[in-house]
Amino acid sequence: MRVGLLTGGGDCPGLNAVIHAVVKKGILHYGDEFVGFLEGWRGVLDNNSAPLTLAAVDGILDQGGTVLRTSRTNVRKIEGGIEKCVATLKANKIDALIAIGGDDTQSVTNALIQAGVPGVGVPKTIDNDLYGTDACFGFDTAVSIATEAVDRLHTTAEAHNRVIVCEVMGRDAGWIALTAGVAGGAHVVLVPEKPIDLDHVCGLLKYNHDHGKKYGIVVVAEGAKLPGGGQATQGSKVDSFGHARLSGVGQALAEMIEGKTGYETRSVNLGHTQRGGTPTAYDRMLATRYGLAAIDLVHQGNFGRLVVLRGTEIKDIPIAEAISKNRTVTDNFLEILDGLEPKV
Amino acid sequence: MRVGLLTGGGDCPGLNAVIHAVVKKGILHYGDEFVGFLEGWRGVLDNNSAPLTLAAVDGILDQGGTVLRTSRTNVRKIEGGIEKCVATLKANKIDALIAIGGDDTQSVTNALIQAGVPGVGVPKTIDNDLYGTDACFGFDTAVSIATEAVDRLHTTAEAHNRVIVCEVMGRDAGWIALTAGVAGGAHVVLVPEKPIDLDHVCGLLKYNHDHGKKYGIVVVAEGAKLPGGGQATQGSKVDSFGHARLSGVGQALAEMIEGKTGYETRSVNLGHTQRGGTPTAYDRMLATRYGLAAIDLVHQGNFGRLVVLRGTEIKDIPIAEAISKNRTVTDNFLEILDGLEPKV
Amino acid sequence: MRVGLLTGGGDCPGLNAVIHAVVKKGILHYGDEFVGFLEGWRGVLDNNSAPLTLAAVDGILDQGGTVLRTSRTNVRKIEGGIEKCVATLKANKIDALIAIGGDDTQSVTNALIQAGVPGVGVPKTIDNDLYGTDACFGFDTAVSIATEAVDRLHTTAEAHNRVIVCEVMGRDAGWIALTAGVAGGAHVVLVPEKPIDLDHVCGLLKYNHDHGKKYGIVVVAEGAKLPGGGQATQGSKVDSFGHARLSGVGQALAEMIEGKTGYETRSVNLGHTQRGGTPTAYDRMLATRYGLAAIDLVHQGNFGRLVVLRGTEIKDIPIAEAISKNRTVTDNFLEILDGLEPKV
Amino acid sequence: MRVGLLTGGGDCPGLNAVIHAVVKKGILHYGDEFVGFLEGWRGVLDNNSAPLTLAAVDGILDQGGTVLRTSRTNVRKIEGGIEKCVATLKANKIDALIAIGGDDTQSVTNALIQAGVPGVGVPKTIDNDLYGTDACFGFDTAVSIATEAVDRLHTTAEAHNRVIVCEVMGRDAGWIALTAGVAGGAHVVLVPEKPIDLDHVCGLLKYNHDHGKKYGIVVVAEGAKLPGGGQATQGSKVDSFGHARLSGVGQALAEMIEGKTGYETRSVNLGHTQRGGTPTAYDRMLATRYGLAAIDLVHQGNFGRLVVLRGTEIKDIPIAEAISKNRTVTDNFLEILDGLEPKV
Repeated sequence: MRVGLLTGGGDCPGLNAVIHAVVKKGILHYGDEFVGFLEGWRGVLDNNSAPLTLAAVDGILDQGGTVLRTSRTNVRKIEGGIEKCVATLKANKIDALIAIGGDDTQSVTNALIQAGVPGVGVPKTIDNDLYGTDACFGFDTAVSIATEAVDRLHTTAEAHNRVIVCEVMGRDAGWIALTAGVAGGAHVVLVPEKPIDLDHVCGLLKYNHDHGKKYGIVVVAEGAKLPGGGQATQGSKVDSFGHARLSGVGQALAEMIEGKTGYETRSVNLGHTQRGGTPTAYDRMLATRYGLAAIDLVHQGNFGRLVVLRGTEIKDIPIAEAISKNRTVTDNFLEILDGLEPKV
Repeated sequence: MRVGLLTGGGDCPGLNAVIHAVVKKGILHYGDEFVGFLEGWRGVLDNNSAPLTLAAVDGILDQGGTVLRTSRTNVRKIEGGIEKCVATLKANKIDALIAIGGDDTQSVTNALIQAGVPGVGVPKTIDNDLYGTDACFGFDTAVSIATEAVDRLHTTAEAHNRVIVCEVMGRDAGWIALTAGVAGGAHVVLVPEKPIDLDHVCGLLKYNHDHGKKYGIVVVAEGAKLPGGGQATQGSKVDSFGHARLSGVGQALAEMIEGKTGYETRSVNLGHTQRGGTPTAYDRMLATRYGLAAIDLVHQGNFGRLVVLRGTEIKDIPIAEAISKNRTVTDNFLEILDGLEPKV
Repeated sequence: MRVGLLTGGGDCPGLNAVIHAVVKKGILHYGDEFVGFLEGWRGVLDNNSAPLTLAAVDGILDQGGTVLRTSRTNVRKIEGGIEKCVATLKANKIDALIAIGGDDTQSVTNALIQAGVPGVGVPKTIDNDLYGTDACFGFDTAVSIATEAVDRLHTTAEAHNRVIVCEVMGRDAGWIALTAGVAGGAHVVLVPEKPIDLDHVCGLLKYNHDHGKKYGIVVVAEGAKLPGGGQATQGSKVDSFGHARLSGVGQALAEMIEGKTGYETRSVNLGHTQRGGTPTAYDRMLATRYGLAAIDLVHQGNFGRLVVLRGTEIKDIPIAEAISKNRTVTDNFLEILDGLEPKV
Repeated sequence: MRVGLLTGGGDCPGLNAVIHAVVKKGILHYGDEFVGFLEGWRGVLDNNSAPLTLAAVDGILDQGGTVLRTSRTNVRKIEGGIEKCVATLKANKIDALIAIGGDDTQSVTNALIQAGVPGVGVPKTIDNDLYGTDACFGFDTAVSIATEAVDRLHTTAEAHNRVIVCEVMGRDAGWIALTAGVAGGAHVVLVPEKPIDLDHVCGLLKYNHDHGKKYGIVVVAEGAKLPGGGQATQGSKVDSFGHARLSGVGQALAEMIEGKTGYETRSVNLGHTQRGGTPTAYDRMLATRYGLAAIDLVHQGNFGRLVVLRGTEIKDIPIAEAISKNRTVTDNFLEILDGLEPKV
């Protein structure tokens, strides 16, 4: 078969591991040919592609980014976009299409499927908030990087009796903040799912201070809601992927904490360092399994499906189901935070 | 309540994170007192313990090893052992016991429960082969360390046109070899669940050699079965935890490969470096969740249970069920390897 | 002897390794007693101290921060400060004082020496700009962290055809930017020693763009001078250590680059993550050697000296000489950048 | 100019960073052309080469290994070897040759220079034992890897009350063992420069045991001399680079320690993991500076020289001088170990 492949949306460690697995199994086992469309759906719109051979994917398994590059081009918002894509795929004699991406990307995959294109989806969201799967690759890497940063902040905060606020990714869902906060032993963890209660935040820091721990680490998701309405005023400066620019909720919160407690407070925003670089072993394995399952679906003729993780097994669900809603941090996960906090 | 706590069997990154979570939630939310028995069941047998306060668990979340230390003492193999343990627990006015450990440790927990001790288990096996749970803490850390080593071996093997055999942990189950092998892009991965086929191994290396890749990385589990009967002759030198000593299957296999192919072949055994040091964020989170769930079970009076991961949720199952069998690498996981290999 | 010890100024990975070495050799070889003054000179002013025993320094070698904590209290700016310090030292029967810190800290050490206190200095500056020594501990760790971040930024920038500006520490000297920039393969490196030439910066990025590399990595020291006068307007918000707060030169420069080139440009500021956490092996070794040399100087009665690295040897120079001037990036180091850049 | 380039001897992190710097400055600043001879001197003997363009060195700065590959072929031991090399260089119209390698490689460079070839040397030894330079790239990376391993071994050894012996590289010089041992807080460090005194080793471990530290970490260089004559009997199995195979001095020493003290003792040999993978920032910078200096020497017509580090500056010395003797661990470095040890 002649299979098209693309990566859409924000980049994410593990994208290359998916590509590597798809192409390797496709060529070695099924005798497929691969066409890589460049920069997400833009490459399909503009018919910009490159062949993906075994040589092209050699050694990319552990590389961050995506050799196909990516973009946020959303075909559905472009008039005649779907038709143009269908035409490109026909012109390239594509028998099946594998699209790796999040909600936005998969909504286009879904539209193409409805237009008759045999498509399969691989989920991708560094925020881990896609509905229907236990895990998305890239998330574990982001959490690892954030946790290592939090580990480092402990000693410098402690040396200076300071509070340090560390802002991490997570616009709608607080999985990265929750996991890196718990794993990093942060004293306060704040997620978008629960409005920030400044009294509670300062109460926790004060409790520690009164019990001999004269420093504090606060991990906050970029999408956490500041008290007094909405996000940081700087939050209006969002980038094209909807992520807050540098001076976001973390810095605003640091100023509030210092104002209220009098403790010297600093902030740091991990920004783009969280999404680059080599994926963790966990993410490489998950991405590889997704890739293998996706090419298997193609050869089973099982289209319109998204590969997902359920427990230890790779399964597949309708793409339409996955993009219908988000998976945010639920109460039983917020109880983890409660369980580790003093009552203040 | 007055709760006893111990860690048994081989050490594993994440043990301290479990202790940290149990003690923090126990004291801060339930008003418990904690007694830590030292060096596994030996501490219960000998009535050797230390109080576990908030101060004692401060800052241990990210530390490897276990502040309670551990041993392989198996109470069931000692005459009157169970009675002695019951007496110690009574003497210490222990209302409930939380035992963190693998099959051997939990078989004692189970025996104590049958003798009337209110006990709860937390699973621990770095090999990830415990039945009934999707994951055990420590495994992700071991895989990370092994994968980083495999990453490093690629460049030195390539620079010298060599084959390097990397031996990793896994006596009965090949999860570490499988995951680190796939994540590290090894060319051959060998697990205990499938006898080594030397022709196939050398065939894969030769295929790569003939296609321009003049080096090879082989990842082998310590328990993999060499061709011609059983394990490496050196395999008889096992340590007290049943792990092969330094010169094991890896070195024997390297000699076989060099003999058969003529390719210069070296071996390295990652040994104890795989089980020490700070746990990954994944393992810290999982261990924390296990600890929180274990102390909750105690306060629910839900004894005889083992906390487990199912999908994204923490559940609990009867201890007796978990220790009844092992979870080894099944065919659908071996297919991952097939999917990435050329047909030779 | 009874020896006082303190750490002053901004914290720096390796401070604990110095303390560890001083105390270990002092107790084990010289039979000394140690008094640790807490939070830098503030602890001497306020007579706030704790004994430093072998147990107190066990296991701190690889820890970031400083068990003695630190502050920026400058005794010389406090009326009667020097006299108060002399009195505290006398009251504690201190025979000799070892002060670990940078210019500010050592200027107090020097004043105390002139007031008759037998003192020895250990240099500390994460910026590596202390005159008279080839290297300061902490710098290598900061560079490692910054380089790993730059490594990660490459793949995310490339995936999106973006320019990413990474701001690193270095107020007066650009050693961190220079080293992490070169080691990380940044396309543009900007230091405080040379005013930023925006045309040149954009020219380099455009050259790459025209030659197929459609992304760019810019590493900029926080103290680099923006074109059009001085630092970033946000630069006025400096913290108590004189370091720019979050929105500094990096963000301002990113906006200038995007404005001039039209390339999508993002910025990230590594901030406090650069100075926390476990030191590199290099820094641990250097800090250990400094500590051993400092306690040797004390027992040689060789006061008023600062330990320094010269080539591979530890030497000592007058404290007064070291604090007289800074070591900034010189032309022969700037030539490294020229050597790797295209001519534009 | 038309410049030849090769890497010889054992591989070492940083080789690619040298190649990257040489080629970039050569092409961008001097307008040179580069011919890369493959697999060390073997490529010159056999006239096996590939052009080195800017594209060929793009992105290799942070890669371990060497894109030119390497071998231990020693031209001087091959009859007519020097003449053959001279002929190849002439046939390729090589105006100057840059050889990156250790003693053996540079002895050939020197012989070629005497035969009229305009050559320049870049020093390379992971053991850091080359005479005439303060540091060689690759060493810092090896030490980092070994130190991280030692860090990890602490917690597993402590959890089990064990002694763990960690064998590291260093056949003639103990720099890696010394530095990783001190940085990793090992309790005993053993180097080739001083025969192992088993009584002293066991005395140190016993002292710790008697003072509450019931575990021990021993770092031993592969070339350390065991008591009772020579190296481990297994030491006869050396690889083609003279490095001991897996079961070397570490395992033999572990057995001796367990025999003498009765403490449970394990060993691990870090082996090839120490020389692979991405170089540290320190090594990337040093290698880059060496590369830039080497191509400068070529254009200054300053042949027969080896680039070296002296303090913070890159200098050059006659190749003949560098290969005349080794730089081993001297008494003032052994005093570091004495300073940190109890007197037993």
